[in-house]
Amino acid sequence: MTAPVTTPVTTSSDTALSAVELTERHRPTLDRALEAIRTREYWSPHPEHPKAYGEGVEGAPEGSLSAGQGQAAFDALRGGRFEIEGQPGAGPEGGWTSTEVSPYGLEMGIEYPRPDLDVLLPAMREAMPSWRAAGPEVRAAVCLEILARISARTHEFAHAVMHTSGQAFMMALQAGGPHAQDRGMEAVAYAYAEQVRTPGSADWSKPQGKRDPLNLSKHFTPVGRGVSLLIGCNTFPTWNGYPGFFASLATGNPVLVKPHPRAVLPLALTVRIARDVLREAGFDANLVALAAERDGEGIAKELALRPEIRIIDYTGSTEFGDWLENNAHQARVFTEKAGVNTVVVDSTDDYKGMLGNLAFSLSLYSGQMCTTPQNLLIPRGGISTDAGEKSYDEVVADLATAVGKLLGDDARANALLGAIVNQQVRERVESAPSLGEVALESRTVEHPDFPGATVRTPVIVKLEAGKPGSEDVCFSEFFGPVSFAVAVDSTADAVEMLRRTVREKGAMTVGAYTTSPDVERMIEDACLDECAQLSLNLTGGVYVNQTAAFSDFHGSGGNPAANAALCDGAFVSDRFRTVEVRRQA
Amino acid sequence: MTAPVTTPVTTSSDTALSAVELTERHRPTLDRALEAIRTREYWSPHPEHPKAYGEGVEGAPEGSLSAGQGQAAFDALRGGRFEIEGQPGAGPEGGWTSTEVSPYGLEMGIEYPRPDLDVLLPAMREAMPSWRAAGPEVRAAVCLEILARISARTHEFAHAVMHTSGQAFMMALQAGGPHAQDRGMEAVAYAYAEQVRTPGSADWSKPQGKRDPLNLSKHFTPVGRGVSLLIGCNTFPTWNGYPGFFASLATGNPVLVKPHPRAVLPLALTVRIARDVLREAGFDANLVALAAERDGEGIAKELALRPEIRIIDYTGSTEFGDWLENNAHQARVFTEKAGVNTVVVDSTDDYKGMLGNLAFSLSLYSGQMCTTPQNLLIPRGGISTDAGEKSYDEVVADLATAVGKLLGDDARANALLGAIVNQQVRERVESAPSLGEVALESRTVEHPDFPGATVRTPVIVKLEAGKPGSEDVCFSEFFGPVSFAVAVDSTADAVEMLRRTVREKGAMTVGAYTTSPDVERMIEDACLDECAQLSLNLTGGVYVNQTAAFSDFHGSGGNPAANAALCDGAFVSDRFRTVEVRRQA
Repeated sequence: MTAPVTTPVTTSSDTALSAVELTERHRPTLDRALEAIRTREYWSPHPEHPKAYGEGVEGAPEGSLSAGQGQAAFDALRGGRFEIEGQPGAGPEGGWTSTEVSPYGLEMGIEYPRPDLDVLLPAMREAMPSWRAAGPEVRAAVCLEILARISARTHEFAHAVMHTSGQAFMMALQAGGPHAQDRGMEAVAYAYAEQVRTPGSADWSKPQGKRDPLNLSKHFTPVGRGVSLLIGCNTFPTWNGYPGFFASLATGNPVLVKPHPRAVLPLALTVRIARDVLREAGFDANLVALAAERDGEGIAKELALRPEIRIIDYTGSTEFGDWLENNAHQARVFTEKAGVNTVVVDSTDDYKGMLGNLAFSLSLYSGQMCTTPQNLLIPRGGISTDAGEKSYDEVVADLATAVGKLLGDDARANALLGAIVNQQVRERVESAPSLGEVALESRTVEHPDFPGATVRTPVIVKLEAGKPGSEDVCFSEFFGPVSFAVAVDSTADAVEMLRRTVREKGAMTVGAYTTSPDVERMIEDACLDECAQLSLNLTGGVYVNQTAAFSDFHGSGGNPAANAALCDGAFVSDRFRTVEVRRQA
Repeated sequence: MTAPVTTPVTTSSDTALSAVELTERHRPTLDRALEAIRTREYWSPHPEHPKAYGEGVEGAPEGSLSAGQGQAAFDALRGGRFEIEGQPGAGPEGGWTSTEVSPYGLEMGIEYPRPDLDVLLPAMREAMPSWRAAGPEVRAAVCLEILARISARTHEFAHAVMHTSGQAFMMALQAGGPHAQDRGMEAVAYAYAEQVRTPGSADWSKPQGKRDPLNLSKHFTPVGRGVSLLIGCNTFPTWNGYPGFFASLATGNPVLVKPHPRAVLPLALTVRIARDVLREAGFDANLVALAAERDGEGIAKELALRPEIRIIDYTGSTEFGDWLENNAHQARVFTEKAGVNTVVVDSTDDYKGMLGNLAFSLSLYSGQMCTTPQNLLIPRGGISTDAGEKSYDEVVADLATAVGKLLGDDARANALLGAIVNQQVRERVESAPSLGEVALESRTVEHPDFPGATVRTPVIVKLEAGKPGSEDVCFSEFFGPVSFAVAVDSTADAVEMLRRTVREKGAMTVGAYTTSPDVERMIEDACLDECAQLSLNLTGGVYVNQTAAFSDFHGSGGNPAANAALCDGAFVSDRFRTVEVRRQA
């Protein structure tokens, strides 16, 4: 269904890779990625289908692991020490830490080395000059080689992501595998394009009338800022981590990866693969390192203020994201925090499609996505549809039915919902009925393979805009499978509430359903004014909570939910500076 | 000597300008500017020669004022009220303020309206939607029309810059006129290029195997962040102000201009011209506004924390720049602060050329440039030159002689030095002899036309690296005509001191003279590691303190002297965000 990765991947860690070889191997992919970010048409080099991987599969990434091999590789990691060869100050000095708890109840028991930062950070800085000297094209090629090797191990990553985030297997494979790899490659393409906007050299000759012109020979070198810190998240360790990881590495910066204590493995695997490729390509492996921590140790806060750290990529709570933005002054801080996502329901010419689309959006990964809709704003007087006028109560009841139907079968429910990632989300679902009239109760689903998994269907609660109490609820984030069917006086009121929500709380996504061009215009204007990404009238197989690399922007970077978007020029342009050396010619 | 601006400029403020007309008029210039920032070869559309302006002059900007007309226009402004037509909350409500003091002693007496920010800021925000709807190309054309009208009034600006900054007339004309206009146009080109990297729309079609593909129609709109605040400086109000001004305006943001209280006129003229053009082109004139303040009022601090202010451009002291970076969290802050600029003197094959070049660099505008060298690091054991070995003392004495000769004639001295901008700089020059052995005394120069002008030649003080006391001096900024001939043990020590200076204090420029490829390499590495812009072996008519738009980067944005460079992708990319609207196709 998608084009294969163009690279033969060697699995031997002894093979030395020449820069020329790597560049030849990956240049066509880079060029294709550069074209994709220019046209923003559909493109992906990473196969989505689980059966597209493995030896002998036509078009499969070379050297890729089959489903069985991926499972075996994952199982072999469990209950052992995850060594990171050659990382200074790792292991013996800092000790070992094991913090992962599978939301499916599977025993993980993997120990990771804790770093001695005073040893590690100087070693990472020392790795910079040769990486700088490699130049943008070789750096891009090395990054694409890392991605190719990750791609080959997609099945292994799928289990790692599943058992840290709680995503269902298929989602873990796709979002944690090809989609994350796409986002990483997109960042490499942006980083490369940005660095080569300025030529490597220029001859400058300024006329001086009758006198000789002034002549200078100029050289321009992109120079990384310094050590880049990636603070990973629990729910999408690779998808949210790869853009910053590859943007920083491709622009000449060492990357220190500080995973979420509950989602270490996907990023630890990434670090190990990256170090292998760097070493084989003749660079210092310490350009990439892992900083695993003990539970509650909170080293992100300490790291974020270290003078060596000059770039920070963060995905997580608004509280800590705001703290980083307001305190890590020595670094360029890129955040994706939390928001309150709204869907305005005004009218539709495909009532069934709308209900099905919304039901899926609310259910996918139990609403544990920063892009899941929370507040569905529905006019109190009802809406016009192709199936006739529908009252507010009917819309809510029909949506509840649609969700119930979608998740009626346990196997399907498990495949869509995944597991609840942590105790806080579970408590949030369980206490939601106290917030208002319940339109759809959450139910517990048993998982046939993992009896320890906590699986819950979404709860939908009815609220009335403007009523005391409902205000606080509507303007708070309820991360997880909790959404609100909010009765509003009119669509105009809904748009006003949308504006206020984006302005005050931020939003990663906005959805809307309307058949009226005027309403559409009004909602578009609101999203342009408040800087939020809008999906209109989705009734088919694309959902408001999904964005595709190379085409969709993830977040806008212009409202309180995030100060950056994946991926654009602003995400890469300040990760390096250009140093000019000019000489009289 | 330079190509004329391609635009016929109308001086009537009643002529309505259509978007089509403006775009046709300026598109060729925009395309040429886009080419220039790609090749970084020499280009400028703004004539440097004073005689290139005025009616009937071949190739002059159309409608441009001659020298006499510019002088008359400036004189007509003195002693009067500078009205800003239609600016909300300006004048009667806020009162008037007059704060300018010409460093030449000329009576200015111009009154500017003080703004009522609670009236002005909402009006500026309201101007955004139609400016957003205009799109990147029309915004660029409007900006280029503003620049064309400024260019036509270069002679008027020259006097305005001269009598606020203290620059000599010729420098005020060139740096305050064409060079500043170049930097503004460069920012427009970068802003345009950045906004059109993403297409206005895209069709996205994702294959689904045997099923129908998923199709989406996507629209992308660049959206300004919000009101942009320009905090102007005393010494280069237009040169340092135009990049941020035009970068923000071109990316869809209203710009509030807060000039330095002693350098209001050049930016007030800019605001008035911009408002005229915006109004004529059918946009809200409040996209650009002036915030003049009373002496000591300090409204920059208040403005910088207002929620409406989403972008800040600042040139000035490190102290306030750091404060902005650390406190204006709601805004993207671009700063150019202060640094300590170093020249490493290792060896040369053009001793006379080196001395002449350095003498000029130290003298130009009395060293009142953020780019003027301060610390000249010279090996204690002397240097090799084409004129034989020269001891440290000889080099210092020869440099002192070169400066003395360059400024021996009062007319030439006045033309080069300009006037001392304020009392603090004067005191700094006068107290410099207390810092060490004086190699060259500063002398007072009388100005034939302006007896009130404070004109001083540079002072050079000898220091020894590593000696108690000299350390503090070398690592402090002495803005103005004060430089230090620092004796170092070796070139290697000089490079080490260069590294430490850039790392701790920042640098806008680094210069070096050497005939050794090894030393050259060592200095280049230091500048790449510490992120500083390097000029090597300048002995002719290009000086370390000058940078040319479209080719040279001004500052690196990667050391403590500045967090931004003029001009690159990072300077424009985060001034707007891209909002996507996607629909099922």
